[in-house]
Amino acid sequence: MQDLFEIDDLDLAGRIGRISTRRGSIETPSLLPVIHPYNQIIGIEEITKIGFRGVMTNAYITLKKYGDEARSRGIHEIIGFDGPIMTDSGGYQVLEYGEIESNPLAMAEFEENIGSDLAIILDTPTGATGSREEAENTVRLTLDACKETLDGLKSRSSMWIGPVQGGQFLDLVDYSAKAISKMDFDMYALGSPTVVMESYNFTLLAKMILAAKTALPPSKPFHLFGLGHPLPLSMAVALGCDTFDSASYILYAKDGRYITDAGTRDIQELVALPCSCPVCISYSAKDIRESQQRTILLARHNLYILWKEIQATKQAIREGRLWDYVGAKARSHPNMWAAFNYIAKNWDYFEKFTPLSKSRGVFVSSSPDDLQPAVQRYDQRFDWIAPKRIIMVLPDNGERPFLLSSVYSKVAADLSNDFSLYYVAIPFGLIPVEISDVYPFSQIVIADDVLDDPVLAERVATRIRNQLKSIKPAKLVLVVNTSAQGQMNDFLRKTLKAGAIVKIDGKEDLVQKIKSATRSKKVKGR
Amino acid sequence: MQDLFEIDDLDLAGRIGRISTRRGSIETPSLLPVIHPYNQIIGIEEITKIGFRGVMTNAYITLKKYGDEARSRGIHEIIGFDGPIMTDSGGYQVLEYGEIESNPLAMAEFEENIGSDLAIILDTPTGATGSREEAENTVRLTLDACKETLDGLKSRSSMWIGPVQGGQFLDLVDYSAKAISKMDFDMYALGSPTVVMESYNFTLLAKMILAAKTALPPSKPFHLFGLGHPLPLSMAVALGCDTFDSASYILYAKDGRYITDAGTRDIQELVALPCSCPVCISYSAKDIRESQQRTILLARHNLYILWKEIQATKQAIREGRLWDYVGAKARSHPNMWAAFNYIAKNWDYFEKFTPLSKSRGVFVSSSPDDLQPAVQRYDQRFDWIAPKRIIMVLPDNGERPFLLSSVYSKVAADLSNDFSLYYVAIPFGLIPVEISDVYPFSQIVIADDVLDDPVLAERVATRIRNQLKSIKPAKLVLVVNTSAQGQMNDFLRKTLKAGAIVKIDGKEDLVQKIKSATRSKKVKGR
Repeated sequence: MQDLFEIDDLDLAGRIGRISTRRGSIETPSLLPVIHPYNQIIGIEEITKIGFRGVMTNAYITLKKYGDEARSRGIHEIIGFDGPIMTDSGGYQVLEYGEIESNPLAMAEFEENIGSDLAIILDTPTGATGSREEAENTVRLTLDACKETLDGLKSRSSMWIGPVQGGQFLDLVDYSAKAISKMDFDMYALGSPTVVMESYNFTLLAKMILAAKTALPPSKPFHLFGLGHPLPLSMAVALGCDTFDSASYILYAKDGRYITDAGTRDIQELVALPCSCPVCISYSAKDIRESQQRTILLARHNLYILWKEIQATKQAIREGRLWDYVGAKARSHPNMWAAFNYIAKNWDYFEKFTPLSKSRGVFVSSSPDDLQPAVQRYDQRFDWIAPKRIIMVLPDNGERPFLLSSVYSKVAADLSNDFSLYYVAIPFGLIPVEISDVYPFSQIVIADDVLDDPVLAERVATRIRNQLKSIKPAKLVLVVNTSAQGQMNDFLRKTLKAGAIVKIDGKEDLVQKIKSATRSKKVKGR
Repeated sequence: MQDLFEIDDLDLAGRIGRISTRRGSIETPSLLPVIHPYNQIIGIEEITKIGFRGVMTNAYITLKKYGDEARSRGIHEIIGFDGPIMTDSGGYQVLEYGEIESNPLAMAEFEENIGSDLAIILDTPTGATGSREEAENTVRLTLDACKETLDGLKSRSSMWIGPVQGGQFLDLVDYSAKAISKMDFDMYALGSPTVVMESYNFTLLAKMILAAKTALPPSKPFHLFGLGHPLPLSMAVALGCDTFDSASYILYAKDGRYITDAGTRDIQELVALPCSCPVCISYSAKDIRESQQRTILLARHNLYILWKEIQATKQAIREGRLWDYVGAKARSHPNMWAAFNYIAKNWDYFEKFTPLSKSRGVFVSSSPDDLQPAVQRYDQRFDWIAPKRIIMVLPDNGERPFLLSSVYSKVAADLSNDFSLYYVAIPFGLIPVEISDVYPFSQIVIADDVLDDPVLAERVATRIRNQLKSIKPAKLVLVVNTSAQGQMNDFLRKTLKAGAIVKIDGKEDLVQKIKSATRSKKVKGR
């Protein structure tokens, strides 16, 4: 049997994968536009033409409107779409109106009957405003509903999604996720971030996702409810969210709002449309403002930009550039930047997901780029380096890999077992020249002024000091290039406290100094 | 008579404006796609349909191909475009092949004859590889050509553009720009950044633009040759470049390269197209790779993304968000980040351009956001604050503006001439509560962890210490909120060295403490 979720590629905790439903597969990351069962303003054929391969609709609204007729017609005929449909079950209406006229098992049977491909049990969303007691109650009610549904369903043709609740109370999210992970769901979801989103509390959003994801099996797909904005979307993917649903495209449009990469704008404020989608190429901001079709034009644009964001995130995963992508995005809003810094400090979580090698250069602009997995991994595995009696630390002379440099070819024969050359590569620290051609050391792109960042410089210095503890050299010789890199020289002198400092001027001089160091018999203790 | 260049809006040194030519106006910022005079692969009607309103073509190639026929037909008929055409004059060919078969005056007469709207004199580009002596020579030759052309032209119907040379030698750029600014040009241009661009040396690019712009009259439009990439484009606009030309869209396309916001990609590498332009919506990466029309499809996409970048930059100027926009862009590549930091430290240059007030929130994610003009301006104008005998510094309790807070309404009557309340607003420093409702103090959005950035924290501390030197209080009372903001409290205690520290717990307590402080008669020296 085919796996329900196959993962093709990974970066950070983001996955390119395929969720196989009986009506075709959804490629992740994916956003499912929310379709209204009987009052849909943008035609579904338009939505699929953009590229969307799955949609979300609401089973409860369908039940209220069509009743038994829905059972005979089926949801695919009702909304006019033959691809994968995810159905929400009235949980959002519970959040809005307190309760609904149904119960979990009855709703679940209805979702099965109308042919939902990905069905959500009738949950009680935590929301963002209630007390801890109320939040505990929503977790309990949702878990009860999950059990009642899974136990009571006569047959299962839909894939079933278990929603994690708990809201801002992270221990409740953890509790809820652990409990639900023991139930037989095909997929999991995190409830009610919409309200968190509205307050732009992206750090809390990151914490909620991390709390849920660390308690759930990574082999199953993970859905995030109601995130329909390009600003935090790639970050949510990086944290392990595979699918999203959102009505934002139409809700914003009705409100005259135009989504941009970094936020939304009132269409009244725009002089230029910062987009190349078919709508923005055919119409000016003024055209849209004055059009009878304003809502439709805005909704179309909003769908296009969400599509673009999903595609860009997917490509970033493929390239192993998700860190860089999320980092650049994060700089669009201070709350996103704070969230990015929070994520950077929670590297352990990403360790198990991030592939060891992607053939891409490591970009280091400033803190927290020195905390990205590719860097931390080297840091944590430094202990495979064998101790040496004498080490000589060379400046990074820009020849990469050093192993293939003219200097190395001239001194290689002179190196002995108890003498070793290292060079300093910011932000990794000390790199034995023997592995200087290995990814990622040969592919680092660093901002010229990166040592101006004291947070990063201090962390690199700590790394180097820890690395020296592993190497345990009896003698440490620091080579300083007198003709360049004043800042780097100062940094190394301060950090290394070398037993000897050798000044060099040019490549030939470096060759001579290495040769004479290897010949040196006198070894002083540090 | 209408001004040739009208400026409608400003942000940093970027301008939304209109360059009026006899064939309509070009709205700035603007990119002029380069059109080949007889071998153009993308039809001009397609280019104008995207939105481009002006193009660049090459008068020298036109001369070589059509000779006298070009004089009778005119360049507009030849390339099939009736809008503004800028003509290059063979300078690029000089750079490529050493010399060309013409001379400055003959080329200039030809450009006039074929009806160029914006004509560039035949210059000798500096390039990026030559010695200082060679660079000096290009500056001299170009200045001679400018003089010869302007003196010799029988009549002037075209608008004439004077190209600044000097390349990486910034003193030569300065010299060249000063000399050319004294000549009667309608517009100026900066030569040969293409080669600088190719090495991604964006800091050098920024230095070259700054060197040229500071020596040229800001009232005239400024063109940057050969910058055809979304990555540094907004930065160049922020530095005062109004127009660009580029053949990158077609050169990259011929090479199978697809432009993205953050760089270019080989179309072979793409799994998802990170774009919503009509090409990327209609075709998959695989479709494009396998299409007979590959070059055309790529060129179209490349044009769409360049168009989007210009539009996004224009909208950022309108919103007063150019700083944020360039900053987010800069995080896509370490060399851009270094350039952004370089720009941040050259605030003086922007001082005269940036409007005093734009109704937008000031975003502060981390250093160097504390160096943006809106912040530095307050810093430099702090001396209009009158000295006070006693000052009380309040924590920012999130009530903005403080002037309209319940606390202030209860204590306002008690404040006397020699007693003043300040609150601390990162990154501005001390703000008198009386102006707390003034832009931008009431509209700051700061990352929660911003004080984790020691560079920013230290600059804010220096600001506060300098502000205290202006206020010269005999007594300084620091109010500390015991229930929150531990990091902020520590920062203030360390920075302010207050004569007294008052702990408060809640709003009512704050009201009481302010009242008792105003009643205090005892004033100690610091």
